[in-house]
Amino acid sequence: MDLENLRESVYRANLELKESGLVLFTFGNVSGVDRERAVLVIKPSGVPYEELSPDTMVCVSLESGKVIDSELNPSSDTPTHLELYRTFPRCGGIVHTHSEYATACAQARMPVRCMGTTHADYFFGDIPVTREMSSAETTADYEQNTGLVITETFKNLNPEEIPAVLVANHGPFVWGPTPGQAVHHAVIVEYLAKMELYTRQLNPDAPRPPQHLIEKHYLRKHGDNAYYGQRNV
Amino acid sequence: MDLENLRESVYRANLELKESGLVLFTFGNVSGVDRERAVLVIKPSGVPYEELSPDTMVCVSLESGKVIDSELNPSSDTPTHLELYRTFPRCGGIVHTHSEYATACAQARMPVRCMGTTHADYFFGDIPVTREMSSAETTADYEQNTGLVITETFKNLNPEEIPAVLVANHGPFVWGPTPGQAVHHAVIVEYLAKMELYTRQLNPDAPRPPQHLIEKHYLRKHGDNAYYGQRNV
Amino acid sequence: MDLENLRESVYRANLELKESGLVLFTFGNVSGVDRERAVLVIKPSGVPYEELSPDTMVCVSLESGKVIDSELNPSSDTPTHLELYRTFPRCGGIVHTHSEYATACAQARMPVRCMGTTHADYFFGDIPVTREMSSAETTADYEQNTGLVITETFKNLNPEEIPAVLVANHGPFVWGPTPGQAVHHAVIVEYLAKMELYTRQLNPDAPRPPQHLIEKHYLRKHGDNAYYGQRNV
Amino acid sequence: MDLENLRESVYRANLELKESGLVLFTFGNVSGVDRERAVLVIKPSGVPYEELSPDTMVCVSLESGKVIDSELNPSSDTPTHLELYRTFPRCGGIVHTHSEYATACAQARMPVRCMGTTHADYFFGDIPVTREMSSAETTADYEQNTGLVITETFKNLNPEEIPAVLVANHGPFVWGPTPGQAVHHAVIVEYLAKMELYTRQLNPDAPRPPQHLIEKHYLRKHGDNAYYGQRNV
Repeated sequence: MDLENLRESVYRANLELKESGLVLFTFGNVSGVDRERAVLVIKPSGVPYEELSPDTMVCVSLESGKVIDSELNPSSDTPTHLELYRTFPRCGGIVHTHSEYATACAQARMPVRCMGTTHADYFFGDIPVTREMSSAETTADYEQNTGLVITETFKNLNPEEIPAVLVANHGPFVWGPTPGQAVHHAVIVEYLAKMELYTRQLNPDAPRPPQHLIEKHYLRKHGDNAYYGQRNV
Repeated sequence: MDLENLRESVYRANLELKESGLVLFTFGNVSGVDRERAVLVIKPSGVPYEELSPDTMVCVSLESGKVIDSELNPSSDTPTHLELYRTFPRCGGIVHTHSEYATACAQARMPVRCMGTTHADYFFGDIPVTREMSSAETTADYEQNTGLVITETFKNLNPEEIPAVLVANHGPFVWGPTPGQAVHHAVIVEYLAKMELYTRQLNPDAPRPPQHLIEKHYLRKHGDNAYYGQRNV
Repeated sequence: MDLENLRESVYRANLELKESGLVLFTFGNVSGVDRERAVLVIKPSGVPYEELSPDTMVCVSLESGKVIDSELNPSSDTPTHLELYRTFPRCGGIVHTHSEYATACAQARMPVRCMGTTHADYFFGDIPVTREMSSAETTADYEQNTGLVITETFKNLNPEEIPAVLVANHGPFVWGPTPGQAVHHAVIVEYLAKMELYTRQLNPDAPRPPQHLIEKHYLRKHGDNAYYGQRNV
Repeated sequence: MDLENLRESVYRANLELKESGLVLFTFGNVSGVDRERAVLVIKPSGVPYEELSPDTMVCVSLESGKVIDSELNPSSDTPTHLELYRTFPRCGGIVHTHSEYATACAQARMPVRCMGTTHADYFFGDIPVTREMSSAETTADYEQNTGLVITETFKNLNPEEIPAVLVANHGPFVWGPTPGQAVHHAVIVEYLAKMELYTRQLNPDAPRPPQHLIEKHYLRKHGDNAYYGQRNV
């Protein structure tokens, strides 16, 4: 994929994010990565979605974090994206939103628990919440430290099996193999967070689903023995 | 009804399901049955609703469960539909969704209680939740066993009077005399599940409506003495 | 107003009800009254809103309750409307819905309390819930008895100051000087019921607003000293 | 800015308010101020949004509170707006709504707490609730006293850092440097009030975010060291 294609695909994923209803005003951003060229491409900071075009997407070096060939500032969350691309080797696209239900979970510091098959079709376990950041972490290099606190949360988790996190008192970061799939996952995260709230309201003591049900559904759609969709035709 | 008509009606019911707002992405599926030919017709697995056409609907033998004359995989939930058609003799169409409120009830393992006339106009009693499936039931023939756990739930219930169920930690299966009416019922189930949540939030100890009120409303619309609508004109 | 005008205004109020989002499928109905001719005009029973026209509106005698000059059945709730027109002399239009939040209040048997100025701008006190109907009241003349249990609820209330009620385990009946204003009030009732739920969730022990605030807002918009709007220009 | 421009900008802000979904029917109003000419311009009272035009916006003297050159009544809340413009010297536009979640917070007498970065991006602390007004304050000069109870609430708060308030049992008043930005803030207030409700439902005991996180986000977007958006390019 050459850089023009990546700009185009990041641009389109940003539009899909807007159309999904997950973002208000200029909230949120989507990025994509080109690992061969060692760059990410991301939405410019604070620009309304209506004014975006593939050309306004900002290219940033994965190594130096510096803007390449653009007059616009990249999203202020760019250092967070950089940290995730560096640590999660198969991550191809990242979305950040302040979507209502997922952000409320982040504010309540409650994970989105895996309470059913809708969740297990996409995420092989709870969507975790990061720990609170320290004053030192917030004062300097805040956005990079946000990335580090996310990767710390995944020390014992597989970011391909659980491609999302809630940053405490902030909101969700969600990823996937491509920018478009990251947006798709962000929509699912919001849907699951909404159902998590309703489930808790209906029955705070509802039992967890058995692990065999979660495995069945996750593996029905992922891995070598998946049989959902048209892949076996 | 010849098979082309059934394909057309199942296709249109799938579109209505999409337009109803009950399904996200490729979630959900609708099927219909032709009992004379002993086949069901169902949505193909994992295909976006926008790409469907009557021709892409998949025909499956009621007896063998095998695909007839199609290159697409049927919905992975097909064995569940098969089991319901086999056991519920007047069921003509089935819908499965992960609609938000009904799925939250399934995750909370709380039935949608019959708390008012809106419910009693359609369902003559609570919409039940299935028991948890065992590891053995999940590991092999999972989708067929989902159907069996549903029919077990209806051992002492009339599936024509209560044409819906919540599969624990999964979501609703809803049926009716035709695919279109099954979709109609699925919309009602979501509406009732939403009001069930609100009712519980307002007053967890609210009394049940008297049985005579439930009977009055159900029988106003169903059976020989129904007087709702234009049927008596 | 001649009868054609009333048919037209009831027809248009039914369309407004549909557009307001308060009703699903064929749920709900609006009627209007012509007190000189002693008739009401109401939506036909079970007909989809898209198929309505002024001509399909059904005319019913206020005295005998019999259909005049129509081949369609009137709404099955017609005897309830009749009873309200007979007892509330200034009521010019009536709406019945199963709108989500107001119906949930009816199911929870919780009045929509007057908790703020939005409420007091329209309703001079709580929107009450009827008592449970007896088996005898439900078995025979159910719809008329629904009207009687409503008027009983207003024995010590002014139906012009509080033009709405929640029928227990059923849903709201709402009225006003005209069919259009009754629909307007039905939209407000749903809005207030929604905020009543949120208010209870945020703070179940929230104090009532002082009576002087309720009076101020109600009388700012109603009665001889009203000063809201353009009436004094 | 001459007066025609102000009328135009207040008119457009009123339309944006309507399009935002925050207001029902004729609820709500937006005003703007011209401090050189010592006038405010505001929506006329009780006129549907569809019938507004720049010419129908009503001009009122900041000093006398009298209408200048208009045949329409200004919004009945005009004396509240006047009081805020007099006391908050940098306030350029004011919005009043009865938006659902913010009004529910006002009815519950619960501030919208600063529980995360979405809030801190716009408001440097909780959005407060006014005290209950006395009978004397309500009986005479009610709307002006509403303004006074708001400014009393801000005795120790900076109205530029927290450009919104919830009037107890009434609803939000929100402001900003221009009428358009006041509407923007009103949309954010409703979004935050919604998340505040969800956060409380998920975890009533959720800890507050650390102060350094709130400062980081507020100062990332406001003041001399702001680095969000394109201002540094």
